[in-house]
Amino acid sequence: MANKLSAAEVTAALSELDGWDQESDQFIMRKFSFGDHITAVGFVNRVALLAEKADHHPDLRIVYNTVEIKLTTHDANGVTQKDVDLAKQIDRYT
Amino acid sequence: MANKLSAAEVTAALSELDGWDQESDQFIMRKFSFGDHITAVGFVNRVALLAEKADHHPDLRIVYNTVEIKLTTHDANGVTQKDVDLAKQIDRYT
Amino acid sequence: MANKLSAAEVTAALSELDGWDQESDQFIMRKFSFGDHITAVGFVNRVALLAEKADHHPDLRIVYNTVEIKLTTHDANGVTQKDVDLAKQIDRYT
Amino acid sequence: MANKLSAAEVTAALSELDGWDQESDQFIMRKFSFGDHITAVGFVNRVALLAEKADHHPDLRIVYNTVEIKLTTHDANGVTQKDVDLAKQIDRYT
Repeated sequence: MANKLSAAEVTAALSELDGWDQESDQFIMRKFSFGDHITAVGFVNRVALLAEKADHHPDLRIVYNTVEIKLTTHDANGVTQKDVDLAKQIDRYT
Repeated sequence: MANKLSAAEVTAALSELDGWDQESDQFIMRKFSFGDHITAVGFVNRVALLAEKADHHPDLRIVYNTVEIKLTTHDANGVTQKDVDLAKQIDRYT
Repeated sequence: MANKLSAAEVTAALSELDGWDQESDQFIMRKFSFGDHITAVGFVNRVALLAEKADHHPDLRIVYNTVEIKLTTHDANGVTQKDVDLAKQIDRYT
Repeated sequence: MANKLSAAEVTAALSELDGWDQESDQFIMRKFSFGDHITAVGFVNRVALLAEKADHHPDLRIVYNTVEIKLTTHDANGVTQKDVDLAKQIDRYT
């Protein structure tokens, strides 16, 4: 099982990512904006495929042309390396 | 432009639908649960297609195997017949 | 109903598009290649949304990281302006 | 690596599945029909997610409300147990 990262470890990990914020040691999140709804839905599908591949599933919120993603590892009760890795993957498919 | 429905009109409209709730006259919402994430994502895609066809876009929140949908008509500042019609369509594609 | 274009009219229309070929006056087609399967599926979803919006549906073939699209207008028994318009839209969402 | 099945082994495996045909020992295929295009696209997304999870990718052809799926294992130059397993999964998500 992936170990829970401390808030400081999450901060350090996010410094290597682009546009992700943290809610203490509980979850990391990023809001993506696209030109329109169609492009946003295409992105959600790429994220869903990455999530299925990684067997790790983000919370996704779609509001018209924006997609908000929250990542946490439920069985660790916080953020783990799995969340950071999936965030990196998601950024590659923006 | 679609006219805003009163809270009572929304209540009456929802009585014909299955599982939808209202937040006064502001929006209607329903939470759908599926067997797994894959089925939930398939549903989200059907909803996205219906929304594009209707040119009316719900707020969608996906948490693993659940999908929460909120409908409102922004330019009417509340719920209109467009929201009720899209909710009916969505129910047909569950 | 959209009128069927002659083979010469199709050729003229395609000269304004990027990478589309024609099979005489019967259909137009383009093959798209992406970095991987995930990106290809994201594209297919954007195309499906555009198609639903236009109420005009291409034939889609997905083979790993490639997507082949064929457009024709069945009730005109050939290519019409609807096909050319949807091709333009698809190119914008590549 | 998965071993290639003989044509007879493929026939035996398909007898446990529903609606799949074989092209000798080269590939297995099934054509699915749905009520409309929206439902067909929702199905394609479920298949894409299953494929990504299994790291095994079918050829998919979408023609309005039908989806034709072909499965083969390229590096075995024919049908393997991986194809049969994915076919079973796909049937569960129809």
